[in-house]
Amino acid sequence: MTAAALLPLLTAAGVGRDEAGALADAVLEADAAGHRVRGTTSPNPPVGAVVLDAHGTVAGVGATNPPGGAHAEVVALAEAGERARGGTAVVTLEPCNHTGRTGPCSQALLEAGISRVVYVFADPGDAEGGGAGYLRARGVEVVGPLLQDGDLPVGMPVFSVEPWLVSRRLGRPHVTLKYAATMDGFAAATDGSSQWITGKPARARVHLDRSRRDAVVVGTGTVAADDPRLTARRPDGSLYDHQPLRVVVGLTGLPGQAAIHPAVHVPTRDLEVVLDELAARGVVDVLVEGGPHLAAAFIAAGLVHAVEAYTAPALLGAGLPAVVAGPGTTTTMAGIQRFTLRSAETIGGDVLTVTTRACNPR
Amino acid sequence: MTAAALLPLLTAAGVGRDEAGALADAVLEADAAGHRVRGTTSPNPPVGAVVLDAHGTVAGVGATNPPGGAHAEVVALAEAGERARGGTAVVTLEPCNHTGRTGPCSQALLEAGISRVVYVFADPGDAEGGGAGYLRARGVEVVGPLLQDGDLPVGMPVFSVEPWLVSRRLGRPHVTLKYAATMDGFAAATDGSSQWITGKPARARVHLDRSRRDAVVVGTGTVAADDPRLTARRPDGSLYDHQPLRVVVGLTGLPGQAAIHPAVHVPTRDLEVVLDELAARGVVDVLVEGGPHLAAAFIAAGLVHAVEAYTAPALLGAGLPAVVAGPGTTTTMAGIQRFTLRSAETIGGDVLTVTTRACNPR
Repeated sequence: MTAAALLPLLTAAGVGRDEAGALADAVLEADAAGHRVRGTTSPNPPVGAVVLDAHGTVAGVGATNPPGGAHAEVVALAEAGERARGGTAVVTLEPCNHTGRTGPCSQALLEAGISRVVYVFADPGDAEGGGAGYLRARGVEVVGPLLQDGDLPVGMPVFSVEPWLVSRRLGRPHVTLKYAATMDGFAAATDGSSQWITGKPARARVHLDRSRRDAVVVGTGTVAADDPRLTARRPDGSLYDHQPLRVVVGLTGLPGQAAIHPAVHVPTRDLEVVLDELAARGVVDVLVEGGPHLAAAFIAAGLVHAVEAYTAPALLGAGLPAVVAGPGTTTTMAGIQRFTLRSAETIGGDVLTVTTRACNPR
Repeated sequence: MTAAALLPLLTAAGVGRDEAGALADAVLEADAAGHRVRGTTSPNPPVGAVVLDAHGTVAGVGATNPPGGAHAEVVALAEAGERARGGTAVVTLEPCNHTGRTGPCSQALLEAGISRVVYVFADPGDAEGGGAGYLRARGVEVVGPLLQDGDLPVGMPVFSVEPWLVSRRLGRPHVTLKYAATMDGFAAATDGSSQWITGKPARARVHLDRSRRDAVVVGTGTVAADDPRLTARRPDGSLYDHQPLRVVVGLTGLPGQAAIHPAVHVPTRDLEVVLDELAARGVVDVLVEGGPHLAAAFIAAGLVHAVEAYTAPALLGAGLPAVVAGPGTTTTMAGIQRFTLRSAETIGGDVLTVTTRACNPR
């Protein structure tokens, strides 16, 4: 993630060129804080905030606490203390303007003496929206929204609040499809063996990713074939503090001794039912880890909003593809689902390509 | 391609940190010159050279002329003229030391008063090798080889002379497999339609790539299905100056009115025979463009030394894969062919991943 993609947005919003670089860095730092709490904030969004003092120096960094706890702005303001007066608050989501379990952030920013607020995305909520207007009406300079959810440009880093925004807009959990495959598109050899397609750094990234999701989902076929734990583990084998809800989808029974337990088994092929079940459990951000039939079903249903494709620099020439067609799969180019390339990153010797859907997938 | 990957190689070779940046830039500029003449120099290597004057300023740039013409060093020296005296010559391949159709480059460098030569790869030839030793023996400072062919690190840009080096080492033309596919690995929809998986910038890159190859190869199935021209065209439709030899492989007859004509039809399934036929025509650098059966056959035969995979940020969920297994294809992970990731580059909204084989593929 680089600040370069943010510079034109900041200058277009009226920020001077001399300041744009420092503010872009602050946006990235705020977003990084948001990513660190992903998976622990649902149903609230994992927001990140940075408070710069009047000289533009970072005075406080914060992220959303678990439900009932402080919002990102309040955490960052608390760290900044008096240094917030006359300073700038940089937030990845428009400050809230309502009194829920915590007080409104817009009021907290005002009381701390913040003179400028920069935010990335507007808050789409009816109840929470309006923080920008509240602050503007009280003389605070407000810069934002810098980006519109659903229309994000090629190369723009993925912000931590995006799954929450998409989930709000679509009224269902946000689904990221993840898989690892060879350059020629195979997730396993013909005999089913797949250890290991990608290298250690890529596999470590998958575990970090899991530790930042509300839920991970696999099909019963994957449980039968691989018996995965699907826990989020650090390279030394220890568990991350946050573990996602483990979910198994499919009509086949889930063995009591399967390594994935404790897991939720949703015995259906209807993925809408699966997502309803997950929504009822407060899940916003879902990672689908396969297998190939479940992946194809999510694609065919138009339910995939982001893809994380790990590509290993290897060829098999044959094998089990990452996606295997099922009912409803398109047979023509007219049915192709276009995504927007957000990043192509080298991880160890592998490539992680991240794409998101520009439009409502249904 | 960035100079960063070259800095540690230069400092390890004894170049001071204050100079390493400028020399790395010169190596890249020399290599870029080499890439511009690829396809026109075989059986000679497409070498690039930059002459820096005594102050480190670029005084001349050159690349290998077509067979019988001047070598890269001679072209760069001619441009530099008297400014070469006391300067540095940066060359992507060790200067030759023999009198072939042109005089030895090592002698030309000495006579021009060059005081330092930096080169990337050693010349593996018996007759041509030894330019570095010749120059050293006569008091010229020689820095190199910076890299060993066949053991190139992750992230190192692909140099224009690599296919020639590999071809020399293996005794057969160097084969690059190229394909375009969706994120889920499909080169076409189930009905065979594939226009267009990737965007215009990626397709323009393919044409530029063709214009820098000795030969492009497809199977008879691709000719029957798509009737491609396989010419190298600029975005405005005009032809590049250099057109690769067009080659069709397979037992099916090649229709006289096929768009690919004039083409060479090699009516065999034996890819060794194909490569022998191409070698006899002076071909060093081959681009295999499919279809999926021919791609799988080249993989199974262990003949692929580089892969260029264009990935479109799109999902089909089903379709025709870029590679379809044939005789000899591996069925286990033990048979996986590992490559080294050289680059993952965003082109328009697509990703181009380039990998090369680290070891002898057979």
